[in-house]
Amino acid sequence: MIFTRGISVGCGYCAPGNETVLWRGDKCRVILADEPGFDGWCRVIWNEHVRELSDLDEAERGHLMGIVAKLERTLIGALQPVKMNLAALGTAAPHLHFHVIPRFETDANFPDPVWTERRHRNSRLDRNALADRLRDALQALPVS
Amino acid sequence: MIFTRGISVGCGYCAPGNETVLWRGDKCRVILADEPGFDGWCRVIWNEHVRELSDLDEAERGHLMGIVAKLERTLIGALQPVKMNLAALGTAAPHLHFHVIPRFETDANFPDPVWTERRHRNSRLDRNALADRLRDALQALPVS
Repeated sequence: MIFTRGISVGCGYCAPGNETVLWRGDKCRVILADEPGFDGWCRVIWNEHVRELSDLDEAERGHLMGIVAKLERTLIGALQPVKMNLAALGTAAPHLHFHVIPRFETDANFPDPVWTERRHRNSRLDRNALADRLRDALQALPVS
Repeated sequence: MIFTRGISVGCGYCAPGNETVLWRGDKCRVILADEPGFDGWCRVIWNEHVRELSDLDEAERGHLMGIVAKLERTLIGALQPVKMNLAALGTAAPHLHFHVIPRFETDANFPDPVWTERRHRNSRLDRNALADRLRDALQALPVS
């Protein structure tokens, strides 16, 4: 990977295709993932091509984790999950992003990690209606 | 779960058995996980029984994520992984902790998430020697 900031050619997070954007800020954006069996699975994506959390400076890290925490709290308020899961992996797609995932007893593989085999792919909520609801709830996030 | 702070009876992170502690602070501790096939897999465990990241206030969250970032940077410096993975799941054990996991092409299931099936359980490094090395490197972390 040549660039650690700016844009990396060929990176799917630098040049996204069909993202369902819920909120967009100067430094990061929130999208609703398309993950059948997991209602409300969101991602917070750092806009610049940064590889690791520790590549951010303290103020940037504070901003990102503030957005993650507020998104987590919004999803708890909106959906009352049993537990929240957070993860920044990116082993095959090394552009900093946090998965923010509400877990329900009815989800695809509760209580196992979401990356284990899905036992079903049934979502309970209408994805478009959920996106609209979360967009409204996330309007108060700080843009920068 | 009755308590969100303090100690929760029956929680394995409140009353740990055989943790390999690398560093201990007033608010959180760092342990070397026992995960065959994954060299250097660490956990940062919040000492009090807190459920979600968003249950911390901003200063606490900043402290925790500062420790996570410094641990990540220490592991990168010590082991030169291909990528770092971070995750706070706890679906079955809801006591706030972050997995901080160096990923290598030789690890148990690279580049898949560590929670998918392990294709082998071979560690390359001696665990006790690695623990000593990381303990030395983590001495500079801020205790509070």
